[in-house]
Amino acid sequence: MTLPVAVDAMGGDHAPGEIVAGARQAAGELGIAVALVGPPDQLGEPGEMEVFPASEVVSMDEDPAIAVRRRKDSSLVRAAEAVRDGRALAMVSAGNTGAAMASALLRMGRLKGVSRPAIAIPVPNLVSHPTVLLDAGANAECDAAMLVKFAQMGAAYSSARYGVADPSVALLSIGEEGSKGTPLVKEAHETLSSTPGVRFVGNVEGRDLLHGVADVVVTDGFTGNVTLKTLEGALKFFFRTVLGVIGTDDATKRAGEVLLPHLAPLAERFDPDNVGGAMLLGVRGVCVISHGSSSSRAIASAIEVAHDLATGGLVDRLTQAVGGG
Amino acid sequence: MTLPVAVDAMGGDHAPGEIVAGARQAAGELGIAVALVGPPDQLGEPGEMEVFPASEVVSMDEDPAIAVRRRKDSSLVRAAEAVRDGRALAMVSAGNTGAAMASALLRMGRLKGVSRPAIAIPVPNLVSHPTVLLDAGANAECDAAMLVKFAQMGAAYSSARYGVADPSVALLSIGEEGSKGTPLVKEAHETLSSTPGVRFVGNVEGRDLLHGVADVVVTDGFTGNVTLKTLEGALKFFFRTVLGVIGTDDATKRAGEVLLPHLAPLAERFDPDNVGGAMLLGVRGVCVISHGSSSSRAIASAIEVAHDLATGGLVDRLTQAVGGG
Repeated sequence: MTLPVAVDAMGGDHAPGEIVAGARQAAGELGIAVALVGPPDQLGEPGEMEVFPASEVVSMDEDPAIAVRRRKDSSLVRAAEAVRDGRALAMVSAGNTGAAMASALLRMGRLKGVSRPAIAIPVPNLVSHPTVLLDAGANAECDAAMLVKFAQMGAAYSSARYGVADPSVALLSIGEEGSKGTPLVKEAHETLSSTPGVRFVGNVEGRDLLHGVADVVVTDGFTGNVTLKTLEGALKFFFRTVLGVIGTDDATKRAGEVLLPHLAPLAERFDPDNVGGAMLLGVRGVCVISHGSSSSRAIASAIEVAHDLATGGLVDRLTQAVGGG
Repeated sequence: MTLPVAVDAMGGDHAPGEIVAGARQAAGELGIAVALVGPPDQLGEPGEMEVFPASEVVSMDEDPAIAVRRRKDSSLVRAAEAVRDGRALAMVSAGNTGAAMASALLRMGRLKGVSRPAIAIPVPNLVSHPTVLLDAGANAECDAAMLVKFAQMGAAYSSARYGVADPSVALLSIGEEGSKGTPLVKEAHETLSSTPGVRFVGNVEGRDLLHGVADVVVTDGFTGNVTLKTLEGALKFFFRTVLGVIGTDDATKRAGEVLLPHLAPLAERFDPDNVGGAMLLGVRGVCVISHGSSSSRAIASAIEVAHDLATGGLVDRLTQAVGGG
């Protein structure tokens, strides 16, 4: 029997409507087995999808640690338990990021050899496959040993997801020289330079991120989160500004009709709905966290990514990469 | 007699040609007294501009501390000395940022009450005057007391440069809640909340930067530098991509002719040449550091900013703001 991907039907700004619709797309169009996790009476017609009942919902602004401790019958916690118990291949949620992380960590447990899981985000570019940026916010404070694990996990993830044979790993800093940056960055630079199995290509700067300079870029979760949000904010700002100009009169409307098809590949590549969500690396299971405003398409894409990585043996590859046994 | 703005004629990728041309623009078109600092035989026809001789040049990739110690007759060091000795109003350089900072710090000295100067950068938006982001790279490591001084100096700078009466100050973090972020950010949040004279409006995230959410955004120099470069990289990427689409055939060329005039204000506002350069806050003098690829227009603009702030009493305002006497 094929195991389903467990989908937290209650997480996200448009839950459960868009989530259930996305799950239905994944099940119908992509032929992926899906289990909806949530209160059965709120899930509409599940059709051929399984339902894992859960009576509670963790809201977007709840404190993650408290929510996971108190809401033992929440859709998030039940989804993580389904993976732990071998009833699901992987979990997907568009809900409270912190609570999704905490659920996965507490219910699935950590990979051997990993002290702190990290959030990995694909940063698109126009050159090649996306760059994997981690940690994008799981750990505000990191030490050099953690960054080395992130490098190993990021590389394994880049291989598993994009088929990169020997992924290059860079360190985010404020100059190319190893002597630049915080004490953490300097120490990580040195340690990464001498870690067997990590193809470390040195430091990169914020401006390099969209140019596909490395397969993996490693940083602490504070810097990673600020960087990611700065990037998202800048791109959204720019898209909105350009779209705001188009259609203000007949001439700009016609100009837009000519140019937009050329810009569509760019918009599509950078559309958060297509990126497939954040991946929590370092837990004993596959956990994809889609953004809060996920549409059904984003959810279907996240389910596909979770399915492919779980069947492709991501967890084993990560375990090997960090030298766990 | 009017004191001149001392311009490091040898700093930057296009020195001395563009630098001298920019100085000439400032002197001619804006009527600002300018002194060129550099080897007299390399400065062409200085016309009515003064020349402060300096025989050495600090290159862009030299180690700042070593360069300033060894090249005592460099244009950078001599420019800083001219401010210290009261022979110049302010200094402007498009050269090695670290060496410009070190020259200003070592020759002018620190403001009373400031342990570490910071680099302040104007981040443009489409709503209002630019947001002042600091520290953008002078101090990779900071403590909460330093961030408070940055807040005070940033607010004084926002007032002096943009005429803001009671500037709002925000702290860059990974969530609006004061409980989020690194220990440094949490401590700074608390200290800023109770610092008299600072109108602290709480945390902001990377995505808020282009929306003019606060007059001043404070962060450590590592995060600030990564953020700034991420922002610059994203905007440059986007402009290039849009321009790359326009003009590929007759139809896109015509569409570009319609749309570009509408996008020009955006491009102009975000053009690094118009922003007027980075300001080193916390030294006993005005020091503007323009970007390495500065054109003559960027230099003229930096000279104007330096002149206006120096005559507007920036240093006194900063001293007052940090409670120095």
